[in-house]
Amino acid sequence: MIQIHRLKNGIRVVTDTNPDTASVSLGVWVAVGARFETPDINGISHVLEHMAFKGTTTRSAFDISREIEDVGGIVNAYTGKDMTAYYVKVLKKDWQLGLDIISDILQHSVMDKDELAREQGVIVQEINMSNDTPDDLIFDLYNQVAYPDQPLGRTILGTPENVRSVTSQKLLDYMHHQYTTDRLIISVAGDIDVDDFLKKCEESFTEITKKSGTSAEKARYVGGEIRKSKKNEQVNLILGFEGYGYTDKDYYTAALLASVFGGGMSSRLFQEIREKRGLVYSIYAFNSPETDTGTFGVYAGTGEAEVAELLPVLCDEINRLPDTLDDVEILRAKNRAKARLLMRSENHGTHAESNAIDMIIHGRVVPDEEAIAKIDAVTKQDMACVARQIFAGRPTLASLGPISQVPLYDSVLKRLNYA
Amino acid sequence: MIQIHRLKNGIRVVTDTNPDTASVSLGVWVAVGARFETPDINGISHVLEHMAFKGTTTRSAFDISREIEDVGGIVNAYTGKDMTAYYVKVLKKDWQLGLDIISDILQHSVMDKDELAREQGVIVQEINMSNDTPDDLIFDLYNQVAYPDQPLGRTILGTPENVRSVTSQKLLDYMHHQYTTDRLIISVAGDIDVDDFLKKCEESFTEITKKSGTSAEKARYVGGEIRKSKKNEQVNLILGFEGYGYTDKDYYTAALLASVFGGGMSSRLFQEIREKRGLVYSIYAFNSPETDTGTFGVYAGTGEAEVAELLPVLCDEINRLPDTLDDVEILRAKNRAKARLLMRSENHGTHAESNAIDMIIHGRVVPDEEAIAKIDAVTKQDMACVARQIFAGRPTLASLGPISQVPLYDSVLKRLNYA
Repeated sequence: MIQIHRLKNGIRVVTDTNPDTASVSLGVWVAVGARFETPDINGISHVLEHMAFKGTTTRSAFDISREIEDVGGIVNAYTGKDMTAYYVKVLKKDWQLGLDIISDILQHSVMDKDELAREQGVIVQEINMSNDTPDDLIFDLYNQVAYPDQPLGRTILGTPENVRSVTSQKLLDYMHHQYTTDRLIISVAGDIDVDDFLKKCEESFTEITKKSGTSAEKARYVGGEIRKSKKNEQVNLILGFEGYGYTDKDYYTAALLASVFGGGMSSRLFQEIREKRGLVYSIYAFNSPETDTGTFGVYAGTGEAEVAELLPVLCDEINRLPDTLDDVEILRAKNRAKARLLMRSENHGTHAESNAIDMIIHGRVVPDEEAIAKIDAVTKQDMACVARQIFAGRPTLASLGPISQVPLYDSVLKRLNYA
Repeated sequence: MIQIHRLKNGIRVVTDTNPDTASVSLGVWVAVGARFETPDINGISHVLEHMAFKGTTTRSAFDISREIEDVGGIVNAYTGKDMTAYYVKVLKKDWQLGLDIISDILQHSVMDKDELAREQGVIVQEINMSNDTPDDLIFDLYNQVAYPDQPLGRTILGTPENVRSVTSQKLLDYMHHQYTTDRLIISVAGDIDVDDFLKKCEESFTEITKKSGTSAEKARYVGGEIRKSKKNEQVNLILGFEGYGYTDKDYYTAALLASVFGGGMSSRLFQEIREKRGLVYSIYAFNSPETDTGTFGVYAGTGEAEVAELLPVLCDEINRLPDTLDDVEILRAKNRAKARLLMRSENHGTHAESNAIDMIIHGRVVPDEEAIAKIDAVTKQDMACVARQIFAGRPTLASLGPISQVPLYDSVLKRLNYA
């Protein structure tokens, strides 16, 4: 049973109780991420997420991990464009410890200077790992051109120089300024007593700032081209357009369109480019939503020679999509989307996270029935209309690897009839 | 409720019924993989897994994916060293369709020549993708030196040349010879009627070969060194030893030892090498079991300069581990292992797979209670003894990236007091 509560200081709490679970997942999701950063502090949200685990007024960094791992629990965190998450998964008897640690690191972190110096080295390694991973790096390159000179176009990890320039005081200021009661969602899923949980939350979360922080800059999609030569065996490629955000009325339409286009083994791109032509191992289309924009794109990993055949074929598939949608593939996409929802709801371990994300995006938890009704309501006409709208925009082309045979951006524009 | 059954032809069936699930996971796990290959056909198990989806006597390749995806299901497969898996996840009303398709592709695949020619291109792309992914490639490099000139030292994907030399007839012969009734496990988890399921299995699996195929060559660990220079930002590194297989009496002891050494944020390696020295983002220890051997190793991703500090420190940590094990860290490792088991058992979607793997390895499904009792029974003395045994073996050192500062193998041997 899902319930939404509000603490006296305004922090919202989502409880998702289930008596059949052995574990409890709980955490805090904060509606602040890399999009809230100016260029000079790009990366600070992520440094803060790391440093939250480096010691509080009463716990050392080692204590934090040790206390959770002593009872077999898992503690983790991640930083996104629009949110930062801190969570634990523990056996149900240990939920109080889990909540205690999460509330401690969000209110009493000391941001010790020596710990920071070492953690900066760790984060530089994380940046380097990401840069060595082609299917991570290609998305960073894409965003850089799709959203230039704005937070959404910069990376979540930031540059090594920025990471090294962060100070303890900047972290404390950023946390105090941006981690505010209206932006924190406490979310729990598992076999807990709701009253006990709320009581413990009231007692624990007393020092979060009440005044709202600075908002994120609105996204401005531009588009264009980026090529990065690297001696890899594969060319990694994204061809994309501005898509639809989470709260857009056409969100489900765009998701179904991506599914038809390249969302499974029976999708158009998989069939044409992998099954019929053998040009890729991995190809897929996606509508990746943000709060106020989204990316509708296609990712492919292909060969140095194969890319010259792939890209024109991909353009042709884009061109013919709006006018050739058929009822069978739309029904398949709907069934896939609805089955995913049902299968996801079976996996209790993910409920704390999905509920919290719903709270941040929609201010409520969207029931599966509502999502299913919206999926069912999408028509072929809606999809054709959304496809035309998306593909009328300026494309973004990002390529990485042995790129000598990647067709020129102008030839892609021409093939797409982009004026 | 878990039950084991045997079809008339000898195929074993594991049913794991649970009335609370919306989905059914089912598939066939075959106790045959890359370890059953001679050098000239290395990669054929994996090509076969791909080609099983490329059409049967009554279904085209497109039919196979379309029929499952029409009802929102997922169909997938993977090839390992010792097993190959074919499985679907569908809503419970669709389990018959799922079983029908799995049994069809395992008995009536046609291995069409044109489909094969295209799929060879796809698999070459898959090989290239793996080679571009440092934390995949480093494990291939490691195995090449740890187990030279034998199946376990070769890759699952094989070489592009081998993949291109496979013919339709070779695939049919290999499947007929190796996919035998004694090696197939049908596994299902979800809300199904067991009698109906067994009846359908009897009717469907009538054409599997009864005579047993060729066995896998026994592993011979050798060890040594491999360095591969690449213009990456990070050095990827594995330092390992021969470890323990699934059925070894010391399997749980080795797993707990890996957990203490580098299995979480509070583990020794994470604390010493990441938290205290800031040399890595990712470091972990593992005992990766095979049927008759295993790898006890440490993976790290570090910098070009940092590796010179990291490797000696890692050797020192190895040297001091057997004599410094303490009760607190052992208890933590046990609690972690037991909590993982409980958390895994909550996730019904994974039961079909874990039960099938148990059947292949142990000939039965190991109850959680038995695993927990074995974990509890491990003593500090057992762990010290196992650590000494592991580290007395010849080490294997694999490194990839900007490797100029990776210490010489001889200096590592010396630091480890390996005579």
